[in-house]
Amino acid sequence: MSKTDANSGPARGPAEHEVRDQIVSTATEHFSRYGYEKTTVSDLAKSVGFSKAYIYKFFESKQAIGEAICANCLSQIEADVRAAVNEAEHPPEQLRRMFKSIVEASLRLFFQDRKLYEIAASAATERWQATLDYEARIQALLQDILKAGRQSGDFERKTPLDETVTAIYLVLRPYLNPLLLQYGFEYTEEAPTKLSSLVLRSLSP
Amino acid sequence: MSKTDANSGPARGPAEHEVRDQIVSTATEHFSRYGYEKTTVSDLAKSVGFSKAYIYKFFESKQAIGEAICANCLSQIEADVRAAVNEAEHPPEQLRRMFKSIVEASLRLFFQDRKLYEIAASAATERWQATLDYEARIQALLQDILKAGRQSGDFERKTPLDETVTAIYLVLRPYLNPLLLQYGFEYTEEAPTKLSSLVLRSLSP
Repeated sequence: MSKTDANSGPARGPAEHEVRDQIVSTATEHFSRYGYEKTTVSDLAKSVGFSKAYIYKFFESKQAIGEAICANCLSQIEADVRAAVNEAEHPPEQLRRMFKSIVEASLRLFFQDRKLYEIAASAATERWQATLDYEARIQALLQDILKAGRQSGDFERKTPLDETVTAIYLVLRPYLNPLLLQYGFEYTEEAPTKLSSLVLRSLSP
Repeated sequence: MSKTDANSGPARGPAEHEVRDQIVSTATEHFSRYGYEKTTVSDLAKSVGFSKAYIYKFFESKQAIGEAICANCLSQIEADVRAAVNEAEHPPEQLRRMFKSIVEASLRLFFQDRKLYEIAASAATERWQATLDYEARIQALLQDILKAGRQSGDFERKTPLDETVTAIYLVLRPYLNPLLLQYGFEYTEEAPTKLSSLVLRSLSP
């Protein structure tokens, strides 16, 4: 969609989600280039070719736009992790891939573009809803793999499932959370293999 | 030792380590109260009652004093952890106590006095020698417990010892390192129990 289309859009009544998507996509680029803190809603309005008032119809604040970007970024990580997990058939291998892909996707999305890190870090520090939802979805994925492994006989069943999920999630947390991951670059090569091996040993029936 | 004693000290020729200890102890108090970044060597000199030049005879920079304080703080954590481990007889219980005491001692020393956190964080970020030494000593303690547990038959012996040490150290790292620990306060209650249980399951023969 060009800026002209976008400007004439409201008159033609584009779907609300299309306008929101366009604002989010322009803001993502803008934050990437100039940083989240330094960008104002006026800068974004200028860049997307809308009035500031029009943007406020869709997002109540800059943070609301940041949250939408963050939600996209976290969904992308989750999609990558799910794809990696689904490539494997057996729960132990799925767990290994989960560890590996979480580290890789998090590094790629939080740090390759340093400016997106800024938003992800605010989200993690202030516990934005997008972060809470993401953490819950990763725990649900972990639980699914563990359940499948218990059913297939690959994993032990004595420990309460909830406890196993929480403990493994705690092992993963330094590689999921951008605030922690920034201090772990030197471990991102060996950690996924070593930690998933330890976790798999802990799961043996 | 009063300031007057300290001032007249050099003439009477006190042992070098006594003067160093006095500078370190005054600096610890001073940094605690005013912060590490904001304090200059002149401030310290005034506070300890020495000339700046005299302090530079013992420490080449403010960082050198910070390193000595940090080394003391890390030694204190290590002493607490060793004491807790030594209270237990059997390697599995020693490992549980190691997890629990590392979290408790680190929280107490890094965060109870927020100003010492500043020094510990610089040490961890810049990988000061005191930090490297501390990490190596914690890994050595872990290795001792694992060896004892392998010998007593409590722990499995198939996995190479080095690999087990590294993996468990990675599990502990978020609670050892002040930069990571600052983002994990909400987990410090449950993490030691849940993670040591997971690790012990991974070690079962």
